[in-house]
This record gives sequence, C-alpha cells and structure tokens, in this order.
Amino acid sequence: MKSAVYLKPGQVGLVEIDRPQIEDPQDAIIRIVRTCVCGSDLWRYRDDQMESGTRNSGHEAIGIVEEVGAAITTVQPGDFVIAPFTHGCGECDACRAGFDGTCDRHIGNNWSGGVQAECIRFHFANWALVKIPGQPSDYSEGMLKSLLSLADVMPTGYHAARVADVKPGDKVVVIGDGAVGQCAVIAAKMRGASQIVMMSRHADRQVLAREFGATAVVAERGETGIAKVRELLGGGADAALECVGTEASIDQALGVLHNGGRIGFVGVPHYANHALGSTFAQNITIGGGAASVTTYNKQVLLKGTSKNSYLLSP
Amino acid sequence: MKSAVYLKPGQVGLVEIDRPQIEDPQDAIIRIVRTCVCGSDLWRYRDDQMESGTRNSGHEAIGIVEEVGAAITTVQPGDFVIAPFTHGCGECDACRAGFDGTCDRHIGNNWSGGVQAECIRFHFANWALVKIPGQPSDYSEGMLKSLLSLADVMPTGYHAARVADVKPGDKVVVIGDGAVGQCAVIAAKMRGASQIVMMSRHADRQVLAREFGATAVVAERGETGIAKVRELLGGGADAALECVGTEASIDQALGVLHNGGRIGFVGVPHYANHALGSTFAQNITIGGGAASVTTYNKQVLLKGTSKNSYLLSP
Repeated sequence: MKSAVYLKPGQVGLVEIDRPQIEDPQDAIIRIVRTCVCGSDLWRYRDDQMESGTRNSGHEAIGIVEEVGAAITTVQPGDFVIAPFTHGCGECDACRAGFDGTCDRHIGNNWSGGVQAECIRFHFANWALVKIPGQPSDYSEGMLKSLLSLADVMPTGYHAARVADVKPGDKVVVIGDGAVGQCAVIAAKMRGASQIVMMSRHADRQVLAREFGATAVVAERGETGIAKVRELLGGGADAALECVGTEASIDQALGVLHNGGRIGFVGVPHYANHALGSTFAQNITIGGGAASVTTYNKQVLLKGTSKNSYLLSP
Repeated sequence: MKSAVYLKPGQVGLVEIDRPQIEDPQDAIIRIVRTCVCGSDLWRYRDDQMESGTRNSGHEAIGIVEEVGAAITTVQPGDFVIAPFTHGCGECDACRAGFDGTCDRHIGNNWSGGVQAECIRFHFANWALVKIPGQPSDYSEGMLKSLLSLADVMPTGYHAARVADVKPGDKVVVIGDGAVGQCAVIAAKMRGASQIVMMSRHADRQVLAREFGATAVVAERGETGIAKVRELLGGGADAALECVGTEASIDQALGVLHNGGRIGFVGVPHYANHALGSTFAQNITIGGGAASVTTYNKQVLLKGTSKNSYLLSP
C-alpha cells in the first residue's frame, strides 16, 4: 500500500510499504478515508536529524474498518469511524476519569501514528474508536472534513475548555488563533461562555473566530494586550485557554485572569519548566494559593454549628 | 494595649502599643479572644534581618467586635466573630468566584496581621467577618480552639481539597502531616473521599490523621513512598493534597496520581518555579495535556450528529 514518508528534512513523498496486519486481539485495521496535517507534524518535517524514510507522523484520520482482532465487539468491518489519536484503553484510572489522551496503558509510541497512508493498525479499537453514522458517501466533503477534525483538533480545543472548567456565563480568553484556538472558541461557546475574547493578529483568523463565537478580538500582546482584555471584560477573565505552548502565552494567560481564575493549556510546552512540563505529560490539574476563609466558613465549615456541636469537637 | 512584638531573631515579648482606631468606614475594631501561632510565623521569628520591635505576624484570631465603621451593617459591637486572615472584600471577581484569599482588592499588606495583641483593626469587616453563634462563655476551651482553627488552618486544608476538586468516592493522598495536612484529611473526608492516605513519619501525627479520617498511612518517601501508595490504592490517586511547599512534595504529589489526576497545593512554594509561584500567588488552577478524544466525541462532540447536521456544519 502507499504511505507518506519523510524523504529528507522538508520533503515528504509516497512509497510502497507493507499493509499493516492484526498483531493483537485488540487491534483493528482501518482504511483511511480522510487524513490531514497537524501543526505538530511540522516539527518532524523540519527536523534536521530526521532519517530518510521515516514513517509519517500523521495521527488524524477517519476511515472504514477493514478487519478486527478477536477481542473486538464494538465495531465490525464496514463501519465508518473516527480514529482518535489518543487510542485510550477505556479501562484504566485515567480513561475512567475522562483523560484517555494520557491513558495509563500508553507505552511509548503504541499510538496509531503514520495515518497518512492507505491503511493503519489501530490498537485499543474496542473502546477508542468512535463510530460515525452511515458511510462516507452520505456526507458532503465539508462534513467529512468536520468529522476529521474530531480525531484531534476539535477535542484538543475542547480539552482546554474542559480542564479550565468553562461554565455558563464565564468570561473566557483564547490565546492562539490557529486551528486549536479556533476550536477552543467553539468549545467555550458550547459550554455557555458569555464573553469570548480571541487574541489574534491575523485578519482572516479574526473573522473566523468571530464566526465561531468570539465576542471580541484583541490584537495587542504583552501588557498592552492584557490591559485591553481587562478593559473589554471590565476586569479579569474567569478562564484562559492557552493554545500556543510558549512561556509568553502562559504569561499572557496568567495576566488576563482575575485571581482564582483557571487556565486550560493544550499548547505542547516548548519551554523549560519542570512542574508544568510534568503536569502536561500527566494531564494533571494543579491549583493552590491562599485559602478562601470567609467563603468556606460561611458555606461549609461553620454551617450548622451550634454551641454544642462542631465539626472538630474538642 | 498589650501586643506581642519580635524583640530579636528568636525572641518575642509583650509591649504597650496604641490601641488601633477605625480608619475607614469598612473597618471594625475587634478585641481578641483567642489567637495562635502559625507555621508561617516561624519565618519571621527566625529571620536574621528582622528589626527589633517588629509587629507580630499573627493572623489567626476569634474575638468580639468592639466598634464598627460607618459602612458596617452585618456585625455590631458585642458580636462574637472569626477574623479570617484573608479579609476579602466580597465584591471583586476573585471573591465572587470563591477565592477571597486572593481578593483582587488586596493591596500589599492591608490584611489584618498583628493579631497577637489585645485588639486589632479589621478591614472589609462587612463581608469578611464570620459571626459565631453566642458568646465565648458559651463554649468550652476545646471548642474555642476549634473555632480558632477556622481563621486559617482548617480553611487552608479545605482549600487544598477544593482546588483539587475532591469528590465522593475519590482516592486521595495527603502530603504533609502538620496542622494543615491534618485539616486536609478532615476536608477530604467531608467531601466524601473513599480512601485517604496520609504520608507521615511521625507516630503521634499518624494517630491523629487516622482519627480524622485517614484510611492508611505511608511513612516512606520518594519512589518507595509512591510505590507503596500505588500498591495500597491499586493504582494512582485521583487527588493529591500538597501541604508542605517544597519541590520534593510537589514531585511526590505528581508521583502518586494517575494520569488526569488533580493536585491542590497550599504549602507556600519554597522553590524557584516561575509558573507555579505565579499560579499560587494568583490562586490560579492550571491543567492541560493531550485531549480526551474518544471521551469528548462520545459524550459531547459527536452526540446528536446525523447525516445532515453537525456542530461544524460545512
């Protein structure tokens, strides 16, 4: 079958490779219907150290199930599916907590990369694959592309909004106007944000963001950008969705929030920061600071206290 | 009136100082009924650079309102109150989001320090003070001490559990067996944790933790401690409550969690880490990592998709 490979830094070509085979009862073989290029593919594309013939790093695809392993009961040959780049097992603590992107059973590179090819082998197919109603011929080209976005970019934008716990009425700032940032705007809107500020310097992307639900656009960066956002929102934001992955964008996120705000960061960290690097790799949410003494006393801790009873009885 | 002051590094004494006066309509004057020493007071106590006569750094108290400013309507002279160290305004974005410990109106040191004295001036008294039913004479000495714990240490332990979003059924690990760690155990139990592991090497504190709700104790640290916790829980924890403030304790927290777990950290960071220092100062919660593609597609994004409609219509 044909597959894209990296011929040399900055050059991709098609070569004939062996069709993948079922290797494990949990595998499925999928014939690719649509695939695409992710921003992260460019790292490999530009990598000076990359060896010629390196398998493509594509990981976003929709396709048709061709063959299934013995343990597969949820899909069958002929099913039209989304092939998530995350391929969670569905059974570990992480998957059960809704973090299949960092499934506890991921071992090194057992994910289904190399999807810029005619067929792929997909592990943990039983739980991880997502069935699409009907067949590809039932959908327009535009719809196929929208469905393809569910293999990575749209859920990644949604992840930023989810880990930042965006709630109805929230004021949200999106940092990064690329595909993920645009999807973060959609996600913030889906979750009921009342105001969504997109920080963007590109006219075409600003238009797209507004179409997707951004209520304002701020082109300035740094302190000027932060001041503009705060002026627009009449204060700090409740949530910042960081979709870039630089230290400057994390600082931007910290700058636009009111104290007690929340950051969802999905830009793969391109900076040396021990703790944030670790939390990202493990999908850990971390929060802390001075306690909310009055709030907790009024809402929880002193509630129901009488002269004779109290949660810490002496 | 009498007030504790730092006489020299390692020595505290009582001196006569002026009784505080109402300076702002939002002030109240409070006569202290009980106060105590916080672990953080020891930093000042041990500070070689500390000038003789420096005001005490006490910030935990219960007392009786003696006098109120013109804007105060919620308490009156004679009321028995908790004087939270956080003194939030109750009106800013941070307070409204339940983060009065980092009220957006805090300006430098406008908090009510110096409470190891006969009286204090307390700002933002209208919202921040918490009324206690009855009068001090209605309570036993043990109950007064329990009520005093609501000025800082108990809400601080609760904050760790709240920002880590401890939920019913969660497996929780508490790192730090001091007063805050013990309160974090109580908080985890209040929020319905099914298992609470206290990491402690002190026999007396282990007993206390079990009394407060810890279901297991692990004395080992580092990799051995992490392995022991994982063995006890049959996997990683859902939440880790970090009540120490060192890089080692953050690493311990990262080590005991399953991917997608949550850290609440209330140990004031004593380490050089740009991002975590900033998030702590602002009480920001930050999360991120690879998206949960299968989860989001099944639960939200592909839900209700038919051949003719889809959230991103082409």
